[in-house]
Amino acid sequence: MENQEKRPLILISNDDGFSFSGIHTLIKVARRHADVVAVAPLHQQSGKGCSITFFEPLRAIKVADEEGYQAFTVPGTPVDCVKLAIDQLLGGRRPALVLSGINHGYNYGTCTLYSGTMGVTFEAALHHLPAVAFSAKPFDPKTDFSALEPWIEKVIEKVLAQGLPDGVCLNVNMPQEPRGMKVVRAAMGKWEKEYERRTDPRGMDYYWVTGNYVLDAPDDAETDVRAVAEGWVTVTPCRVDPTAHAHMAEITALLT
Amino acid sequence: MENQEKRPLILISNDDGFSFSGIHTLIKVARRHADVVAVAPLHQQSGKGCSITFFEPLRAIKVADEEGYQAFTVPGTPVDCVKLAIDQLLGGRRPALVLSGINHGYNYGTCTLYSGTMGVTFEAALHHLPAVAFSAKPFDPKTDFSALEPWIEKVIEKVLAQGLPDGVCLNVNMPQEPRGMKVVRAAMGKWEKEYERRTDPRGMDYYWVTGNYVLDAPDDAETDVRAVAEGWVTVTPCRVDPTAHAHMAEITALLT
Repeated sequence: MENQEKRPLILISNDDGFSFSGIHTLIKVARRHADVVAVAPLHQQSGKGCSITFFEPLRAIKVADEEGYQAFTVPGTPVDCVKLAIDQLLGGRRPALVLSGINHGYNYGTCTLYSGTMGVTFEAALHHLPAVAFSAKPFDPKTDFSALEPWIEKVIEKVLAQGLPDGVCLNVNMPQEPRGMKVVRAAMGKWEKEYERRTDPRGMDYYWVTGNYVLDAPDDAETDVRAVAEGWVTVTPCRVDPTAHAHMAEITALLT
Repeated sequence: MENQEKRPLILISNDDGFSFSGIHTLIKVARRHADVVAVAPLHQQSGKGCSITFFEPLRAIKVADEEGYQAFTVPGTPVDCVKLAIDQLLGGRRPALVLSGINHGYNYGTCTLYSGTMGVTFEAALHHLPAVAFSAKPFDPKTDFSALEPWIEKVIEKVLAQGLPDGVCLNVNMPQEPRGMKVVRAAMGKWEKEYERRTDPRGMDYYWVTGNYVLDAPDDAETDVRAVAEGWVTVTPCRVDPTAHAHMAEITALLT
């Protein structure tokens, strides 16, 4: 027991919940290195970004309790899971590392803004905790991600040993047969033709989100979108501070 | 009519919906300068950040249609409103400016991450549109913000005339009796003691979000939180690109 007390703690969340295989791959790898507490949303939270639940209370249902491993489901967002874990569920233990995913589907380019998977890591970064989000294809909830374990393990080992710069979290996207690992920036871009209009049986219009993702700079090999397509495991350091520091003087000149 | 065709278009949204007075102050000021289309959520969307609705279709209900002004409510998030407006509701007209707010309550410091008000401006920035979010106190849905109109008008005039750097949006927080305007960075900080645990009549625990906001650097006068408290209208330029460009080499050395 004494030895166990000294193991580091890894907190794990995601935006798909425990019914998707991705989080179980992360839990499996993480348990080789640390005690693990997994706190994941009860309902699918894709596209929930950093949102928080204000108007309803949260609950936490314990669904696993083993030597070195506990798991809770929370009927809230990924950020709710991280906040509730740190404040209430970890018994005061401070995580050495926070992991998110494996998301079923890439979170790259400007998807990062909308990503519940990344919401976990941004929240952890606010708490000055090192955090890494992992995403991969395909979407199938039963996907076997075991071939990606060595890549996940490498990142966990390095970050557990050396930490991350304060206020910076990592966004990792993994293609199916990686040729190596590359640190790249997020590709900027946007969706076009984003809604499909339909008419309901009462004659009223409604809109389904759909669309094409169009890159601002499609040929930029130093972006995550392009590098993943070329077979690289991409690592994008993301910062939690929204300030456009490089533009302070320009905006001051414009407005004051 | 020919003259009207040449007026610029301002798109306005918020996270509180049309039942709060803040958006009507923005609409009133904006209409002095441009045609206005306001597209706001049907339900309260505080804390929804940049989240998107994937699993239900959206609708858009037209609630105003006057010379130079249309308004729609959308049962979705602030980002849904912007996306649906650009793709479907503006009839192909490109906004010269996107405004968000006035939010009832400040959106500063790391609130920016969770803010539906800021979600509007981040989404606009992805579309290469200049965008400004306005927030003020108090929370009262009927607050009379008319004393703030000159500050709003100044920002609208400058940004309409000169635009903003690509990928940068502005976060403006306005105290009740401003002494001037200041361009400052977002204060970094986090919530502590964030949940209050209660027990329901069936003996099960539940948790309400609450907490104290604790600044990482409480004495830093060049942050939005401190400057608003000192009576300044604060303007924080925020960038939509999440990449921590300053840390690319460090992360490359760590992982590859």
